[in-house]
Amino acid sequence: MAKVNQQDPLFEKYHIRTDLALESHQVIVEQEGPPELPGVKVHTEKEEGITLTRIQVESDLGAQMMGKAPGNYSTFEAPGLRMHNRDLQERIAEMVAKEIDWFFEEAGLGPEDTVLVVGLGNWNATPDALGPRAVENLMVTRHLLEMSPPELREGLRPVSAISPGVLGLTGIETGEIIMGVVDRIGAKAVICIDALASRSVDRLCSTIQISDTGIHPGAGVGNRRLAINKETLGIPVIAIGIPTVVHAVTIVSDAMDLIEQGRVSNGSEELPSRVQFSIDPEAIRGNQEQSVRPQVRSLDKRQIMSQVLEPYFGSMIVTPKEIDQLIEEVSDVIAGALNTSFHAGVSYDEVFKYLS
Amino acid sequence: MAKVNQQDPLFEKYHIRTDLALESHQVIVEQEGPPELPGVKVHTEKEEGITLTRIQVESDLGAQMMGKAPGNYSTFEAPGLRMHNRDLQERIAEMVAKEIDWFFEEAGLGPEDTVLVVGLGNWNATPDALGPRAVENLMVTRHLLEMSPPELREGLRPVSAISPGVLGLTGIETGEIIMGVVDRIGAKAVICIDALASRSVDRLCSTIQISDTGIHPGAGVGNRRLAINKETLGIPVIAIGIPTVVHAVTIVSDAMDLIEQGRVSNGSEELPSRVQFSIDPEAIRGNQEQSVRPQVRSLDKRQIMSQVLEPYFGSMIVTPKEIDQLIEEVSDVIAGALNTSFHAGVSYDEVFKYLS
Amino acid sequence: MAKVNQQDPLFEKYHIRTDLALESHQVIVEQEGPPELPGVKVHTEKEEGITLTRIQVESDLGAQMMGKAPGNYSTFEAPGLRMHNRDLQERIAEMVAKEIDWFFEEAGLGPEDTVLVVGLGNWNATPDALGPRAVENLMVTRHLLEMSPPELREGLRPVSAISPGVLGLTGIETGEIIMGVVDRIGAKAVICIDALASRSVDRLCSTIQISDTGIHPGAGVGNRRLAINKETLGIPVIAIGIPTVVHAVTIVSDAMDLIEQGRVSNGSEELPSRVQFSIDPEAIRGNQEQSVRPQVRSLDKRQIMSQVLEPYFGSMIVTPKEIDQLIEEVSDVIAGALNTSFHAGVSYDEVFKYLS
Amino acid sequence: MAKVNQQDPLFEKYHIRTDLALESHQVIVEQEGPPELPGVKVHTEKEEGITLTRIQVESDLGAQMMGKAPGNYSTFEAPGLRMHNRDLQERIAEMVAKEIDWFFEEAGLGPEDTVLVVGLGNWNATPDALGPRAVENLMVTRHLLEMSPPELREGLRPVSAISPGVLGLTGIETGEIIMGVVDRIGAKAVICIDALASRSVDRLCSTIQISDTGIHPGAGVGNRRLAINKETLGIPVIAIGIPTVVHAVTIVSDAMDLIEQGRVSNGSEELPSRVQFSIDPEAIRGNQEQSVRPQVRSLDKRQIMSQVLEPYFGSMIVTPKEIDQLIEEVSDVIAGALNTSFHAGVSYDEVFKYLS
Repeated sequence: MAKVNQQDPLFEKYHIRTDLALESHQVIVEQEGPPELPGVKVHTEKEEGITLTRIQVESDLGAQMMGKAPGNYSTFEAPGLRMHNRDLQERIAEMVAKEIDWFFEEAGLGPEDTVLVVGLGNWNATPDALGPRAVENLMVTRHLLEMSPPELREGLRPVSAISPGVLGLTGIETGEIIMGVVDRIGAKAVICIDALASRSVDRLCSTIQISDTGIHPGAGVGNRRLAINKETLGIPVIAIGIPTVVHAVTIVSDAMDLIEQGRVSNGSEELPSRVQFSIDPEAIRGNQEQSVRPQVRSLDKRQIMSQVLEPYFGSMIVTPKEIDQLIEEVSDVIAGALNTSFHAGVSYDEVFKYLS
Repeated sequence: MAKVNQQDPLFEKYHIRTDLALESHQVIVEQEGPPELPGVKVHTEKEEGITLTRIQVESDLGAQMMGKAPGNYSTFEAPGLRMHNRDLQERIAEMVAKEIDWFFEEAGLGPEDTVLVVGLGNWNATPDALGPRAVENLMVTRHLLEMSPPELREGLRPVSAISPGVLGLTGIETGEIIMGVVDRIGAKAVICIDALASRSVDRLCSTIQISDTGIHPGAGVGNRRLAINKETLGIPVIAIGIPTVVHAVTIVSDAMDLIEQGRVSNGSEELPSRVQFSIDPEAIRGNQEQSVRPQVRSLDKRQIMSQVLEPYFGSMIVTPKEIDQLIEEVSDVIAGALNTSFHAGVSYDEVFKYLS
Repeated sequence: MAKVNQQDPLFEKYHIRTDLALESHQVIVEQEGPPELPGVKVHTEKEEGITLTRIQVESDLGAQMMGKAPGNYSTFEAPGLRMHNRDLQERIAEMVAKEIDWFFEEAGLGPEDTVLVVGLGNWNATPDALGPRAVENLMVTRHLLEMSPPELREGLRPVSAISPGVLGLTGIETGEIIMGVVDRIGAKAVICIDALASRSVDRLCSTIQISDTGIHPGAGVGNRRLAINKETLGIPVIAIGIPTVVHAVTIVSDAMDLIEQGRVSNGSEELPSRVQFSIDPEAIRGNQEQSVRPQVRSLDKRQIMSQVLEPYFGSMIVTPKEIDQLIEEVSDVIAGALNTSFHAGVSYDEVFKYLS
Repeated sequence: MAKVNQQDPLFEKYHIRTDLALESHQVIVEQEGPPELPGVKVHTEKEEGITLTRIQVESDLGAQMMGKAPGNYSTFEAPGLRMHNRDLQERIAEMVAKEIDWFFEEAGLGPEDTVLVVGLGNWNATPDALGPRAVENLMVTRHLLEMSPPELREGLRPVSAISPGVLGLTGIETGEIIMGVVDRIGAKAVICIDALASRSVDRLCSTIQISDTGIHPGAGVGNRRLAINKETLGIPVIAIGIPTVVHAVTIVSDAMDLIEQGRVSNGSEELPSRVQFSIDPEAIRGNQEQSVRPQVRSLDKRQIMSQVLEPYFGSMIVTPKEIDQLIEEVSDVIAGALNTSFHAGVSYDEVFKYLS
């Protein structure tokens, strides 16, 4: 799973690891205080039980601050996804399908353009198996359409799908496998499905992010070194991700924040000095070489914790107890959304009749 | 998975959750400072890469302090088990086999006495699947011996095995299923295999505990309400457990300890006051009703954290990233140890020849 | 899987192995020619794509001829189940639910009487995994109801479920485990789900049999020696089975029948003598000791084939290529039918509200 | 799974489906009687419990007669592989490793040349899952070696591996995926592992074929349309296959042969006319259009059976009852053989030391 991406400014500065643009944005706003980031547009919509936030990162400065590439990020938050709620699962799948449609239009993708769906991650490790599981329930049609006469194919999208595995299983960078296949089959767009790491346990298996900026090295739960995006593949890459783990080190920072907040919410505003984590960074760092100049005390704290805890907790992940069932459910939501988006409003009856 | 057992004095007092007697003992010694607990004998043996600690809880007072029933607890610690080291796996399986032999002798179990091995836990949840996985690799022989003529059965142990599932899957308490089966087949002893929770991430999948005190309500990763022990079953119960998760709340406490220690190890002994978690319990608790009277400041801290964090992290577990592979490996170690212990020094050739 | 039950008159006489009463009945009518069997009532209903045949075996003579215990056998035939047809799956699940209701009434089972569902078979062998798979999707409620106040439980049925495994995995007769659990939990009826063997490949995964005669030694795909029925358990046993395999020896006989029929359907009625399997039993048997006196030439042929082929094909089974997917689908149909039957017309909302 | 390859002369003529060159050869010798085929060399070696037959198809005529491409075919027969015999499994893995070495030499492959191992087949269908299962246990090293300094890589072979899935799951021809990956990573040879169909049930999971002629359309258990061989990939392709299924139609023919042989072995040589399948092809075929001119009566019989049975049994396969366990075992044998062959005599200690 993900080694820390050393180029991630968010991690470098705040020692927070998250693959969600929504959380990156929140951290900057929380920590640095600006009501708005330059060149970053945020738009929020709500309906019963579901919040959809669209973040548009237009400037390089905004991208750099957030540690996310310029582009579009749409994020669905639906805490009810953790409650095994079938109705909500179906409602959100429909909304995700519509959002994918928007990304397809934005990418200039025609209704008959071939897409390759890629289920990233390790099928042997439950929290990383989101992509392969979603791909299992996908309706692939490329081979059927190839065998049909052209007049029947009208308006139908050839869909193909692979689960390339992870570097440790194959010895091959996932990106290399995808490039090879894209070249071969002449795909016009790639849809990547990937398990993500979030900062907050509340978001695990209850948040879905769609973006058009691809997958970056070190992102996702799996460990990747090669970017999977428009630059490397030459075609649009749409990434759909769901956070399934929080890194153990991250949870400790969050816990400390919660405890501090807990203090406040207990009505003891008048005694702030008595309740705090008064870690003195100088005392801990001693004569370590450190070029980073912490601006805020609380950030400093995170950095120190990260250094101290990494050797102990670095290979530990935090997941909900019922992760196996949740992965089943949310991978079904994604597969359902894609099946709807790919094949909506189209009757395959004629094609199938021809083929059988 | 385990709801907190409210009667566990260790949790009530120190807010530490562990199923390992070894860790309970350490906590008491650390927190309360006595070099020895009354009526608790501890004996340690070491060989390359493996530490075996035998704890004998003889007095009710010691049992009460540790929150563990009186009896014998043998614990193997072998950090190398996390390194996928085959040789170590085989060496430790042999040592575990010998230790099981000792527990059998202690329980007065004869070489031809039928045993029932029970794989506790939920096969659908990776960290809880230890028991069912171990049982899959067990050599069961009861049915073969029943079909053989008596003269061939001499010295052979009839072994049977079940994985009863968990309450949420069956609607039946695990203990009820075991009682029903034990009655039917006339088993002379039960061996339970179970995934445990530990306090420390270092012990995950690297520690094996064998005990003769059975399984207690709320213990193990799974949630059980009925004890599985000599009192309820009427026959000796030997429990073999491996910690596979740490509760998320527990990890935060441990992290804070590490950070405080980190400070010290950075040579800043002279500045203790500047580096600490100076939580003031009064400030946090405010007007909450609290009858517990904390004795030591550090305990207080744990208790408060536990209260604040439980609603957020209560359903979260911490596991190694590669838990799927580790579960495979350690369940093989247990199955190997049991196969060796059950069938050691005996040739099944004649039996099999007769049967085929 | 099933060793031949030597007491099965159908096998002894016609060397046909089937767990379906419907097929037994057909064989007798075909081979012995009576329009009706004494004490056996047959009633057929049809609706689009589904045929339901109810066979009532009332006399011991009829039972003996068919090699099936006296009682009720309802069989759904729906060739479309092999076509992955969702609508049909749902329609048939509803019909099966209603038929189960009828069996419950017949058994005098009240709406609040506890039932134990038993998923028979080996979860590691795909064609034998029907029972365990169906149980995975069952809504178990016994533990929830036990925790609710009596006034909320009114009209609700406590459902529990186990998958006891097979003799080779546990060393314990499946029947023994069931008896033990039934005693413990005070179940009022047992529902067994089991993979069956049929005579015809057409019936694989497209036929569902419900009966109230229990499971008999040697029946089912798995090899059982102990009957699971009202006599052994003391409570009604309703068995739901779906054929998933044909024994390889059986398929050869059927193939020969097909070839002979093929001849006829090719319009060569006038040349019967030139197209036939003219096996001379005397020539084959030579000086073997054989007490069976074949009445009909075609039976003789089957018997000889069975003797010659058993050593070669005895451990071979015939299944559809896509058996893994079919097992998933039909186990869902059974689980759906049971969930409907058990919990129909009842709102669990209040119970769940109380519990959460 | 495999649709019939219409160009297969063996099927066209004798209606026998087999992917084993050994069986093709036998059929020709049996049916057409020549002691030797032109341009086909056969060499047999035996050791305890294992027979190794090397067939060299040198001429196009021989290739055409056998329906197999010109090249080398080495086949291990070890009936004991069906008996779960560990010792035999290890002995045969070593022999297979040596044979693979020979194929590597023959292909001019250097010790540091990158190989890509391809696990063909459908992981969701047990008898077709041989390839993906074997790949799971393979030691892949390409990514490790790429990260090591050149001086440590000396003499080490970079091994990579993929399981590309099947057309129905991906919408992409397996051959296309392999070509794409081979191009990307610059592999010097491809090793394909595939489940095969054999003619005889005795060979299921007890026979291993290694060949250098690649995988041909319609071969293997899965249905492929694109050849995977030196012509299409531009690099040597070595295929390792194990028969896991017999087509249901094929088993019927074999059964009839067995019955006829059974007659003879019963000592009734003097009564041949009374015991035979005297199918008259004219009588069956009637006015069907048939251009094939059968030469021998027994062939005719097969052809007719094939025509009559195909609609009924065409989608049915025959496997051993314990196929799940057997697939586990034989895929371990192949993975073990490849690990030995790839990494024999080389210490990875230094590499691993460097990397960790």
